[in-house]
Amino acid sequence: MKIGTSRVEAFSDGVIAIVITIMVLELKLPDIQKEASTRDILHHLTELAPYFVAYVFSFMMVGIFWTNHHHMFHLLEKTNEPLLGLNLFFLFWMSLIPFASGIMGANPWLPTSSAIYGFIMLMTTLSLTIMRIYTLKQGLIHKDEDQNLTYKIYTASLQGKTRSYIGTVAYLLAIPLAYVHILLAYLCFIIPPILFFIPHGIDDEKLAARIEEKN
Amino acid sequence: MKIGTSRVEAFSDGVIAIVITIMVLELKLPDIQKEASTRDILHHLTELAPYFVAYVFSFMMVGIFWTNHHHMFHLLEKTNEPLLGLNLFFLFWMSLIPFASGIMGANPWLPTSSAIYGFIMLMTTLSLTIMRIYTLKQGLIHKDEDQNLTYKIYTASLQGKTRSYIGTVAYLLAIPLAYVHILLAYLCFIIPPILFFIPHGIDDEKLAARIEEKN
Amino acid sequence: MKIGTSRVEAFSDGVIAIVITIMVLELKLPDIQKEASTRDILHHLTELAPYFVAYVFSFMMVGIFWTNHHHMFHLLEKTNEPLLGLNLFFLFWMSLIPFASGIMGANPWLPTSSAIYGFIMLMTTLSLTIMRIYTLKQGLIHKDEDQNLTYKIYTASLQGKTRSYIGTVAYLLAIPLAYVHILLAYLCFIIPPILFFIPHGIDDEKLAARIEEKN
Amino acid sequence: MKIGTSRVEAFSDGVIAIVITIMVLELKLPDIQKEASTRDILHHLTELAPYFVAYVFSFMMVGIFWTNHHHMFHLLEKTNEPLLGLNLFFLFWMSLIPFASGIMGANPWLPTSSAIYGFIMLMTTLSLTIMRIYTLKQGLIHKDEDQNLTYKIYTASLQGKTRSYIGTVAYLLAIPLAYVHILLAYLCFIIPPILFFIPHGIDDEKLAARIEEKN
Repeated sequence: MKIGTSRVEAFSDGVIAIVITIMVLELKLPDIQKEASTRDILHHLTELAPYFVAYVFSFMMVGIFWTNHHHMFHLLEKTNEPLLGLNLFFLFWMSLIPFASGIMGANPWLPTSSAIYGFIMLMTTLSLTIMRIYTLKQGLIHKDEDQNLTYKIYTASLQGKTRSYIGTVAYLLAIPLAYVHILLAYLCFIIPPILFFIPHGIDDEKLAARIEEKN
Repeated sequence: MKIGTSRVEAFSDGVIAIVITIMVLELKLPDIQKEASTRDILHHLTELAPYFVAYVFSFMMVGIFWTNHHHMFHLLEKTNEPLLGLNLFFLFWMSLIPFASGIMGANPWLPTSSAIYGFIMLMTTLSLTIMRIYTLKQGLIHKDEDQNLTYKIYTASLQGKTRSYIGTVAYLLAIPLAYVHILLAYLCFIIPPILFFIPHGIDDEKLAARIEEKN
Repeated sequence: MKIGTSRVEAFSDGVIAIVITIMVLELKLPDIQKEASTRDILHHLTELAPYFVAYVFSFMMVGIFWTNHHHMFHLLEKTNEPLLGLNLFFLFWMSLIPFASGIMGANPWLPTSSAIYGFIMLMTTLSLTIMRIYTLKQGLIHKDEDQNLTYKIYTASLQGKTRSYIGTVAYLLAIPLAYVHILLAYLCFIIPPILFFIPHGIDDEKLAARIEEKN
Repeated sequence: MKIGTSRVEAFSDGVIAIVITIMVLELKLPDIQKEASTRDILHHLTELAPYFVAYVFSFMMVGIFWTNHHHMFHLLEKTNEPLLGLNLFFLFWMSLIPFASGIMGANPWLPTSSAIYGFIMLMTTLSLTIMRIYTLKQGLIHKDEDQNLTYKIYTASLQGKTRSYIGTVAYLLAIPLAYVHILLAYLCFIIPPILFFIPHGIDDEKLAARIEEKN
């Protein structure tokens, strides 16, 4: 990790690692008796199915947020006090994902569950978007002697910002659409991960490694 | 992170990251049935509202404590054994914040809740204050060849100490005032965060980055 | 930690540390009364025994997975985006071990418990195997000027891959065998740890230290 | 952190940070009603008192174990595979401290509670002692060109070993003595922390900083 951003990254990693892991505590087989049969367990697992689907999806989303956060900080040269505050704001919304995931698991077909889930995801994405805009405006982005590298860093930052914008809009739409038809909300939910997995010209991980080498 | 303080910072970060995240486990929608309606969920959310407010406030406070801890350690050149002990004492009180937050959420208007919350916050602030005084007295603060930088480091340390004093007094007053009128206690609670967000001439984060560069 | 893989390792360590520790939350003495007698406690402990055995075994397995992950990443020179994804896939299955461990503790003699436990272990091992194959194919493995060291690194990578293959097969067999006789499944479960503890010519930890020195 | 031991230390820190923090989850005010009075809360707090005392003591002990682990690893030059195993064995027993602490809180005056608590502490101390002996025997201790520093490192290692021996004996005695008189067990429990806080000629933290500087 680079000097100047290392402890913020380490603390954020800690919080995100806990968020992604405590979600599994929602998966409980509640009333298993000593003398449970295979049928009992399968019955309980069936009941857990929506929690499980919510867990898989939320795990993937937290993983994507971590990757984005990881790449965004790699493009930075330094932090400042307001950025620490924005980062805590981002971690706050992130910490509510297990809560929203639990509501989704309990009532997957209820529009209000999707609205709550969408709202938490909206705020998480929005706070990341604000951080991206802030770092670009304040010139906290790494500037390199190598013009080509600097160009790539800015392109990556702008691409990240664009994808954050699209994600924000998708979650914003998901909330009212959940009350039109639940599947429309679900459709909105899968846009950001699809966007994330589409190759976008720049391998952020390679770029990050190249920036680290320079330091 | 600087050599000599790195593992203490890493361990403290771990503990603080867990403290800030497990508080979310207090937010539970207890009796959600499979067939819950939007009304049920909204009803449960309304009941959760005080827990939620307590969570938001406590998350912010833990974030502020982390930032202060982070900056304080950045100004240090080295640690010694008593400082490790004082740091554990600080982490101990910090670890009780989720407990105090839960009491606040359950009975937000009861003076005793505020008194307990105030007491935990008092002890956390007090232990940080003691650490600050100790590091100043023992000369553990970073001394730089650059006179100007050394001057800034001392100014930042002293400012941190002053704000810690004011925080200590605010929480000390909150405990008896909760029994006079609950809003007086709440007023005391918001003094330290307001103090934290008021600009105070020095950007601690920039200062920290400059000290790191020198090492 | 080496530049280029450090934050991925740190994040993975965080998740694995939480996985290994929250399993202990399954160990609860549920109805201890204030006036419990020694007999009551011993009775509760006896009831907890299968949870305890499951905890010991799962703790050992998570420890082994961590060691393997730790050594595998030490042999790498760099990461790329798909590897980040594969790593999250690995952490996902790992995060389900406490869940599977809880089912085993509740019904240790039920074939379905073993089948579920075997399935989670299978997927964890399989995702690690895929990562190993991927890093070998993509040439992410550290290449050293010292031919002898490069040779050792490849040998260690291939040995790791072979052991991952055997582990995958063992867990694959455990699932159907659990329904033939439960002890056959248990037999399969102990193959991977035995394999791990058998000396295999290369001290991965020494090798890792030598690679780190070079960087 | 020094190259060669850094990731083991980071992983151990993660586990220990979680162990020390999840103990607080035992502190629950179980049946607080919306309309609880000050009397209710004080009544609940009184009932929690033994849990609280157990928490304070266990927090201190985990803190001491962390400090000892931290100093022991600072004296090392390298790790090897068996040491990784011994470290996991140590972390395993450490992870059971919250469990033992919960039993103590529920039945503080029952000899069996003290016996269980003593046993977990015994095994934690014993596994640390074995690690110390192993690192001394295998020559994993840092050797410095500076004879004086090397001498101090060995003295610190041997002192650490002696204190570990005494701790092991104290916990070993605590188990049978709990059945003679509970206070005798408690007496044994406070020997190791007293030993820890007695100054012993060497400031391990300063020594650790000096070793780090050399690397």
